[in-house]
Amino acid sequence: MEKGEEFVYIGVDLGGTSINIGVVDEKGKIKFTNSIATEKGEKPTDLVMDIIKLIDRTIKDLGNCKENIKAIGIGVPGIVNQETGMVINCVNLGWQDIPLVDMVENELGIPTFVDNDATLAGLAEYEVGVTKNSSSAVFITIGTGIGGGIIIDGKLQVGFNGVGSEIGHMLVGENYYDCNCGRNGCLETFASATALVNYTKKLINENELKTSIIDACGGNIDKINGKIIFQEATKGDKLANMALDRIVKYLGIGIMNIIAILDPEVIALGGGISNAGDFLLQKVKESVDSLKYFEGMPVSKITIAKLGSEAGIIGAAMLGKYKLMK
Amino acid sequence: MEKGEEFVYIGVDLGGTSINIGVVDEKGKIKFTNSIATEKGEKPTDLVMDIIKLIDRTIKDLGNCKENIKAIGIGVPGIVNQETGMVINCVNLGWQDIPLVDMVENELGIPTFVDNDATLAGLAEYEVGVTKNSSSAVFITIGTGIGGGIIIDGKLQVGFNGVGSEIGHMLVGENYYDCNCGRNGCLETFASATALVNYTKKLINENELKTSIIDACGGNIDKINGKIIFQEATKGDKLANMALDRIVKYLGIGIMNIIAILDPEVIALGGGISNAGDFLLQKVKESVDSLKYFEGMPVSKITIAKLGSEAGIIGAAMLGKYKLMK
Repeated sequence: MEKGEEFVYIGVDLGGTSINIGVVDEKGKIKFTNSIATEKGEKPTDLVMDIIKLIDRTIKDLGNCKENIKAIGIGVPGIVNQETGMVINCVNLGWQDIPLVDMVENELGIPTFVDNDATLAGLAEYEVGVTKNSSSAVFITIGTGIGGGIIIDGKLQVGFNGVGSEIGHMLVGENYYDCNCGRNGCLETFASATALVNYTKKLINENELKTSIIDACGGNIDKINGKIIFQEATKGDKLANMALDRIVKYLGIGIMNIIAILDPEVIALGGGISNAGDFLLQKVKESVDSLKYFEGMPVSKITIAKLGSEAGIIGAAMLGKYKLMK
Repeated sequence: MEKGEEFVYIGVDLGGTSINIGVVDEKGKIKFTNSIATEKGEKPTDLVMDIIKLIDRTIKDLGNCKENIKAIGIGVPGIVNQETGMVINCVNLGWQDIPLVDMVENELGIPTFVDNDATLAGLAEYEVGVTKNSSSAVFITIGTGIGGGIIIDGKLQVGFNGVGSEIGHMLVGENYYDCNCGRNGCLETFASATALVNYTKKLINENELKTSIIDACGGNIDKINGKIIFQEATKGDKLANMALDRIVKYLGIGIMNIIAILDPEVIALGGGISNAGDFLLQKVKESVDSLKYFEGMPVSKITIAKLGSEAGIIGAAMLGKYKLMK
């Protein structure tokens, strides 16, 4: 890249097991990516240094044209204060009150912004994905947990205290196990990929029902994952479908509750489980339709997200663009 | 009033048993009110004619200065399409697809707007009440049912299809009776005044517990109302407090779910139950605090609404101002 050739944004997607970085152009297109694995239990300061080193390497890959980089955006799997750039709470990484933006800006001298990873995936879908041009959109990522990204009139809605769009922590009933947050009844304990796997194991352990899942996981139920359950469900396995019916019921409840509050134009489903595509989408739509609160009630358009695992990087990069434009 | 003296707005609050109208100035101050009782089961067209006649009388009371009336706003206890001015669904009045705005405008020739009554009470609190100047506010009315009014960045949020801010229809668990909407688990079946009364009666019927509520209602449990239950609870009656604890628990869940999605700056509690004031507020705050999804989590400011039963008229009038300014 030549100096001043074009402007780009760096997007950092900080996951539980890796740091993924992408150089993204103004239009939200990824030009190239870098990534490194992270160690479990790594100290926050070490992990931040890993991020900085990887950004540094990426800048070198760009031909040292730092001037072309307008901003750095970082998505973290936790709760952040967008104003101060602090990561307030990040259970999976064991982070609490980490001044991430200050640390990165001090080291690199490039404007840096941080937000929740699901919020940023929602921003990516809004900028270049399935919710583009919608007046209001809610993105729901369904994976290990459940996260959300809300955009109304082109504006990211993260809340007054930055603790909003935590769709996975909506309380929807009583469950047989508690959420990582310490409470009982969170949507993500009913409707995430983890919830699906947990409930499938429970059904296997407590029922005499035969299931093809056992063969599919080589007899080791610890190897059961969402993909296997969906695969056996499509083949007609009864137990797999029982487990699936439960998460679909609760996805319907979660989505209908979002409609009851916000009634967005579009709701996009992303994250690992959304790989099940139309098979899942059809079931979720039926679940939502069964929960209308009056006859003939119009509901949001529900769709599968488009950007897959790239949403994290694109959204983080677009956060830089979004913030600089404000 | 003299012609051109000042501009006013007419606010109409359409309840289950009466039509209340107020003439409201630019600052949201009520100048005078008129009201008539409605008959149960009255035909929609007759009821609309009653509204028109009452507005007409109000215009006469204003000295026939129609020119001074900038707009008419009407709040209805149901779901409306703000764009077309149609009342889509209004269970308590038995209305479905009533072109309310067209009917009123054709008869009176004054710009007319319609919205949900709870939404408008929320607008009133934002214009002249406790949520004034907040960046985001959710008003929750807790009475026969539970309704909501959401304002973000000064903009009413009624949703893409106009079915949003229906906080009472958030699904939060399984209940021992169904909601009027036909579903099971709606917040308003756990946490409205009706829910409080229902659950108190259930406790009385199913328990041997002595309660001072029996004396307070003259031995006729059909006369139990929210006021009596609160009154006996403050005196320390055990059964009254058991019933109250349940609605407070679910108000906490409903409020925390709103925070998990929107995280507004302020949440204001209105409607009949809010008359319990600080006694209720303190309990609700404790309930919300017990449901934080991480330690030290900041939560919205929770407060009792200010305008009481006038919120309906003021909000309806302010809808006219709000719409004309857009």
